[in-house]
Amino acid sequence: MPYFDNIPIISYEGAGSNNPYSFKFYNPEEKVGGRTMEEYLRIGIAYWHTFTADLSEPFGVGTAVRNWNHLDGMELAKARVEAAFEFFEKLGVPYFCFHDVDIAPEGDTLAETNKNLDTIVPMIKDYMKDSKTKLLWNTANNFTHPRFLHGAASSNNADVFAYAAAKVKKQLEVGKELGGENYVFWGGREGYETLLNTDMKIELDNLGRFFHMAVDYAKEIGFDAQFLIEPKPKEPTTHQYDFDVASGLAFLEKYDLTNHFKFNIEANHATLAGHTFEHELHYARVHGVLGSVDANQGHPLLGWDTDEFPTDLYATTLAMYEIIKNGGLGRGGLNFDAKVRRGSFEQEDLIHAHIAGMDSFAVGLKVAQQMYDDRVLEDIISERYSSYDSGIGKDIVDGKADFHSLEDHALSLKEISHQSGRLELIKSTMNQYLLRVNAGE
Amino acid sequence: MPYFDNIPIISYEGAGSNNPYSFKFYNPEEKVGGRTMEEYLRIGIAYWHTFTADLSEPFGVGTAVRNWNHLDGMELAKARVEAAFEFFEKLGVPYFCFHDVDIAPEGDTLAETNKNLDTIVPMIKDYMKDSKTKLLWNTANNFTHPRFLHGAASSNNADVFAYAAAKVKKQLEVGKELGGENYVFWGGREGYETLLNTDMKIELDNLGRFFHMAVDYAKEIGFDAQFLIEPKPKEPTTHQYDFDVASGLAFLEKYDLTNHFKFNIEANHATLAGHTFEHELHYARVHGVLGSVDANQGHPLLGWDTDEFPTDLYATTLAMYEIIKNGGLGRGGLNFDAKVRRGSFEQEDLIHAHIAGMDSFAVGLKVAQQMYDDRVLEDIISERYSSYDSGIGKDIVDGKADFHSLEDHALSLKEISHQSGRLELIKSTMNQYLLRVNAGE
Amino acid sequence: MPYFDNIPIISYEGAGSNNPYSFKFYNPEEKVGGRTMEEYLRIGIAYWHTFTADLSEPFGVGTAVRNWNHLDGMELAKARVEAAFEFFEKLGVPYFCFHDVDIAPEGDTLAETNKNLDTIVPMIKDYMKDSKTKLLWNTANNFTHPRFLHGAASSNNADVFAYAAAKVKKQLEVGKELGGENYVFWGGREGYETLLNTDMKIELDNLGRFFHMAVDYAKEIGFDAQFLIEPKPKEPTTHQYDFDVASGLAFLEKYDLTNHFKFNIEANHATLAGHTFEHELHYARVHGVLGSVDANQGHPLLGWDTDEFPTDLYATTLAMYEIIKNGGLGRGGLNFDAKVRRGSFEQEDLIHAHIAGMDSFAVGLKVAQQMYDDRVLEDIISERYSSYDSGIGKDIVDGKADFHSLEDHALSLKEISHQSGRLELIKSTMNQYLLRVNAGE
Amino acid sequence: MPYFDNIPIISYEGAGSNNPYSFKFYNPEEKVGGRTMEEYLRIGIAYWHTFTADLSEPFGVGTAVRNWNHLDGMELAKARVEAAFEFFEKLGVPYFCFHDVDIAPEGDTLAETNKNLDTIVPMIKDYMKDSKTKLLWNTANNFTHPRFLHGAASSNNADVFAYAAAKVKKQLEVGKELGGENYVFWGGREGYETLLNTDMKIELDNLGRFFHMAVDYAKEIGFDAQFLIEPKPKEPTTHQYDFDVASGLAFLEKYDLTNHFKFNIEANHATLAGHTFEHELHYARVHGVLGSVDANQGHPLLGWDTDEFPTDLYATTLAMYEIIKNGGLGRGGLNFDAKVRRGSFEQEDLIHAHIAGMDSFAVGLKVAQQMYDDRVLEDIISERYSSYDSGIGKDIVDGKADFHSLEDHALSLKEISHQSGRLELIKSTMNQYLLRVNAGE
Repeated sequence: MPYFDNIPIISYEGAGSNNPYSFKFYNPEEKVGGRTMEEYLRIGIAYWHTFTADLSEPFGVGTAVRNWNHLDGMELAKARVEAAFEFFEKLGVPYFCFHDVDIAPEGDTLAETNKNLDTIVPMIKDYMKDSKTKLLWNTANNFTHPRFLHGAASSNNADVFAYAAAKVKKQLEVGKELGGENYVFWGGREGYETLLNTDMKIELDNLGRFFHMAVDYAKEIGFDAQFLIEPKPKEPTTHQYDFDVASGLAFLEKYDLTNHFKFNIEANHATLAGHTFEHELHYARVHGVLGSVDANQGHPLLGWDTDEFPTDLYATTLAMYEIIKNGGLGRGGLNFDAKVRRGSFEQEDLIHAHIAGMDSFAVGLKVAQQMYDDRVLEDIISERYSSYDSGIGKDIVDGKADFHSLEDHALSLKEISHQSGRLELIKSTMNQYLLRVNAGE
Repeated sequence: MPYFDNIPIISYEGAGSNNPYSFKFYNPEEKVGGRTMEEYLRIGIAYWHTFTADLSEPFGVGTAVRNWNHLDGMELAKARVEAAFEFFEKLGVPYFCFHDVDIAPEGDTLAETNKNLDTIVPMIKDYMKDSKTKLLWNTANNFTHPRFLHGAASSNNADVFAYAAAKVKKQLEVGKELGGENYVFWGGREGYETLLNTDMKIELDNLGRFFHMAVDYAKEIGFDAQFLIEPKPKEPTTHQYDFDVASGLAFLEKYDLTNHFKFNIEANHATLAGHTFEHELHYARVHGVLGSVDANQGHPLLGWDTDEFPTDLYATTLAMYEIIKNGGLGRGGLNFDAKVRRGSFEQEDLIHAHIAGMDSFAVGLKVAQQMYDDRVLEDIISERYSSYDSGIGKDIVDGKADFHSLEDHALSLKEISHQSGRLELIKSTMNQYLLRVNAGE
Repeated sequence: MPYFDNIPIISYEGAGSNNPYSFKFYNPEEKVGGRTMEEYLRIGIAYWHTFTADLSEPFGVGTAVRNWNHLDGMELAKARVEAAFEFFEKLGVPYFCFHDVDIAPEGDTLAETNKNLDTIVPMIKDYMKDSKTKLLWNTANNFTHPRFLHGAASSNNADVFAYAAAKVKKQLEVGKELGGENYVFWGGREGYETLLNTDMKIELDNLGRFFHMAVDYAKEIGFDAQFLIEPKPKEPTTHQYDFDVASGLAFLEKYDLTNHFKFNIEANHATLAGHTFEHELHYARVHGVLGSVDANQGHPLLGWDTDEFPTDLYATTLAMYEIIKNGGLGRGGLNFDAKVRRGSFEQEDLIHAHIAGMDSFAVGLKVAQQMYDDRVLEDIISERYSSYDSGIGKDIVDGKADFHSLEDHALSLKEISHQSGRLELIKSTMNQYLLRVNAGE
Repeated sequence: MPYFDNIPIISYEGAGSNNPYSFKFYNPEEKVGGRTMEEYLRIGIAYWHTFTADLSEPFGVGTAVRNWNHLDGMELAKARVEAAFEFFEKLGVPYFCFHDVDIAPEGDTLAETNKNLDTIVPMIKDYMKDSKTKLLWNTANNFTHPRFLHGAASSNNADVFAYAAAKVKKQLEVGKELGGENYVFWGGREGYETLLNTDMKIELDNLGRFFHMAVDYAKEIGFDAQFLIEPKPKEPTTHQYDFDVASGLAFLEKYDLTNHFKFNIEANHATLAGHTFEHELHYARVHGVLGSVDANQGHPLLGWDTDEFPTDLYATTLAMYEIIKNGGLGRGGLNFDAKVRRGSFEQEDLIHAHIAGMDSFAVGLKVAQQMYDDRVLEDIISERYSSYDSGIGKDIVDGKADFHSLEDHALSLKEISHQSGRLELIKSTMNQYLLRVNAGE
């Protein structure tokens, strides 16, 4: 299967190396914080960006040059499976993710589509037997086809609701068949173009019903994957219902779904919502719903989802810091929901981009773990909130204070003493940790 | 009390008039949708912007020329009360709103501050006896003073928590004394500058405790105002906990506060969060938590809170449409949380600006009511979602469908038929309604 | 040619009508400001959005249902010409615009592409003989094909520069053949993905050379169209060289091209650049470079080019105000560079959308003209700047002041007296004018 | 002068140190690229943020605790001078910058203001005799006072134009007196609140006249400083005339001022305009107008000018890369137009923040110089554009090509061959260089 045989074997030459085909920081067997890097990072590859997409955009057709591009239909689908597993092995990644339409073409009918899946899924299962690469999650693409133009589970058209349900049903079966550890819901069309013709109440109620049916069916077939909602604020719809983790949480609470779902948090979706990546992770962590991560990055000055490979070491460090505090990712992973730039159209750019992303998260892990071990931020925070460890603060936390006792306390205060938040010093310290990662200090 | 005696009496000359001191559309006694305009719009004036603020901004000192500017301390506070009630009467508004520090200066101690309030509040109460203008809501300013630099109820400093509580306690008492219909919490400092020194879990937990204590104290003193949270995504903090209605709702649900709070929705805060004004209103409405409105507008190209007087008739129409569908504002109102521009520094600009805002909402009400009466959008929506009235759609809504029956239905479908969403036609129709408001058609 | 025969004849029933196929405000023969509306507005239809595009977007394939969709290749191209001229006549528009690839498919070679054009262009010319619809402008699409992935005239690849030149050469010939009044350059790929691999100096120099060659060739063949640059800040590139009118002007001045170019200003591009639509028009007007307009609108909360049909009457009024002050559009026009929403996929939505846009600009024209005739803003401005009509102000304007005389004057000043800018009153007045348009007042 | 005597002497302990009062990377005498770091970076301190400002913002009063806060009037002004020179020496910075109102309070009249300056300026001059710290630039604050509410040089009020001129005249004299190397124009009020009452033509013309008078007066008094325009897109005005470098350049060209001005580029202003910091530097560099730098950073998710101390090492590296390619900063420097966060209110935060900023630019310099020496980007760029070194590419560059020869070439092409832009590999390589800075590799 010579799809990538022009690319030398990936090696671990370390930080000093100039070999563009070598990892500089990622080493699956290196121990960090008591686990191997592979166990901690749980890297996944996004089938769609890496094997299916063509790098087209609204103003330009695809540019991707792939040595399977001459094929089509099921032959193309099979070649992609072969290329994918060759690529997984070359990079040594433990996980991959896909939508139904990434792995097998849609047919003219649902039955035909399912038949195509029934050809490819066993082929994938067969490849998985000889591979260490497992299924992090799969999902149903309920957004690309014109039938979803007014929504999927939130469509105004009950036929579409049914069609979307049938596609999710099939993918739950596929996930079980392939041993998927999670199942993701990204509601690409679950939102609205305009409120002028929209009844949000019906749409949200139906979305709630849909999720309950999915939970029931997974239980019925014994598929015990963690269910994940992936928030995104806008695009393709003008406003998506799962705007961010907080709005997703409000939804889950309203529809009594909190026991069944966590969140799949994407960096670029966070920033499009006006949040930092670490905000979404932190918020999810303290609410106990940090499930998995779509590890990419956006361009801070562009208003659409660029899905770039993650290379910003501040972002990877702060993300890994939250993940460390979360005790790791559990069944989740770091899925590279990232695409090479349209100008990086050669096949070997796929290698460079994944190395860039994996190295960036390896650096992030090492820097964050060192900061965590040294209690750099932990001690600052512990000291900052120490007024709640005793006295009136402890009364507040213990539920013993009320507005009477608090007013008494306030009236007794001479002056309130504050400490600086020291943000500049903290940022400088973080830079020191980042720059030390390579020096073995 | 000759603060505004250079301004002619406000009149209702109607749409053809060129008199800049006359309302063109607002008429308190005109009936729309079965209520008087005054009853429907429940206009409130923001004491802070209109009587206290000086129009300073980060790059310039205040420019406001007011004929009470030569006073200071308690004399200034008293003059502002006199000016305020003269202004309320002149405009004929039914409501006003204030923060504690707007009406009385802070003293060196909490006791002194309370004493100042105890001078002004009875004076206000006295004025209210002879006025139709009532208190829509009051609140405590827990953000301006340096003691709140690291937060108020979410401060890392328990003394500040206590101080904030004492200030809210006092305002609950003041609200009861003045017959306030609502009580607002805007957490100007309830958020963070950076996650690097922040423990969001402690802060949110404390915020939850704070709100429970406020609920308890209001109950204790028999103050039955509707409690309202006012979301804002950012500014002054980098990230505020009450980012938008959805995140506020998730918070209320987590801390078991849903029975006690609704939302005070501000137009400019909505857009800073990446939502339209009507989105926040619609979302709140369908979740049963639309409480009151801070009626202003932002500049779509500026990234900070400009708090402009509302003049965009699209925004006022769509806002009133949601309010009509909500059955009105209940105990809430349309508070002009809006300031004249820094260049509109003359006292009479206050008149022009309020007329502009009141006329704009009067137009919005009339256009929205006409569209509602004609079922312009109602019929579109009813038709669009009609597939849920029978067949598989009804099964879905009635809870009789599952993934098996839905898959069977999907497999049986030949083709899925869609209708256009007709957004362009709808927008054009809305323009027609807007342009007809003045033609008596 | 029955492409639109299911649509009734367009009529001019006026503002009271509920007929969705009738204009309410646009009437080509109605006189406004001394010209007919048709002469003033010079409406143009964008061939690409209306006849070629399929309404696909990054997350969804096309949804457009067109009764020529069953054709392909040159047959499709011919059917589109037929449909276009039927549509032009139906709407009574005086202009249309196209890119080369909109009207004829690209061949495998440049020669073949040109051959395809040589079939279609005479067909269009033939249709134009019997039509009042003329060519507002044409252009070369030098951005969609993969060959332009690193730029066109600013490509790092000289072959691409040559190819782009050849395509523009052909379109200059086509423009001359069809009597085009303008020729547009939108540099979709003239910008960069990243500065890390970019030499802006070479790219800008080459862009300057390219434009000079285009000027020379047009002169050589006697094509006297007005050349227009269309600014856009970003998308598809991360940063486009013609960011806005100001940066385009700096470019023209540096490369000595000011005598040959004006600007084609698009509303949605203006807002993406952080400017209002009226800012770009005003700036271009006072610099004498307002050439033509791409009349559409964006969504203020979305960060990409949505190219919506213009329905915001504030935007159309302020745009027309600038155009009136410009003495009209000269050889330019109002080209609807706008697409129906993806959910408005039916063929008749094309009719509704164009009526919505034309009516919106008709309202804008009428409101702006009335304000202009009444000198609503003119008198305000004239009064505001009156200090420059005499005294030290006149000295400044006449070039008679220097820092010595100005300091003397400043030292002599007791107090500086200001007038309010009255923004709220002005906005309210503008609303009155808008709402009067339909009342015949 | 014991303003900072509680702070230990600044030391150069290097990257391994945990001493928060020590530089880790900045060392004035270390040679990088053939110059000392001090010579290359030319660090300047912003008097306003560090000695005058109180850290107030629109929702909160000042929090800054300074041991000169108990003073006022001229005593305060003098104490600040003492504190400033103590601080300059402690940090070893070669430059400082100020506005007139930063160093001396405004009086009731212009004459009194000038008298205050005439007291402080000689005091500063005296301190400078014993200090290595020189004046990078000074400027007149023509934006804070209410007189500038409608603009300064672009005011509608000729008296204000005169007043602004008098203030600039005085500062040109002060700059000459103190040996300033540059003189900056930041037009905080040179823009508009709304176009509805604005005549941009008059305002721009007057701005042009103002700059010519300033040029003339500097020449008259023999003040040979480099004049600099500082672009900012918006804030405090809704739209500022010097939106970015490109629009500033268009202005200079139109008013024939290009020979007299370069640009002072601020990082946070660049991002508010939708550009990266390195874009503005690169654009200015290739146009020969890179003058000086306001070295700070904004928050990518906030829409106002946060003026944070620069700590993002990607930004400092890319900025220094442009500066290296520019052959250094010439007479300009890196002025920290940056303020400590409102929560970093203690006096020692000023030390931490400046160390953070200086270290960050020292790292940026070292990383950029190493990349430059290794021709990391240079070779990529040289190779990418090599098609212009021979054949048709050379013809284009040499002015020998025209549309005929280019079409001939295009028709002869079989296929156009492209190379990947390799953005992911380049970013990964840049990360390697960054992480090596501390390892002595």
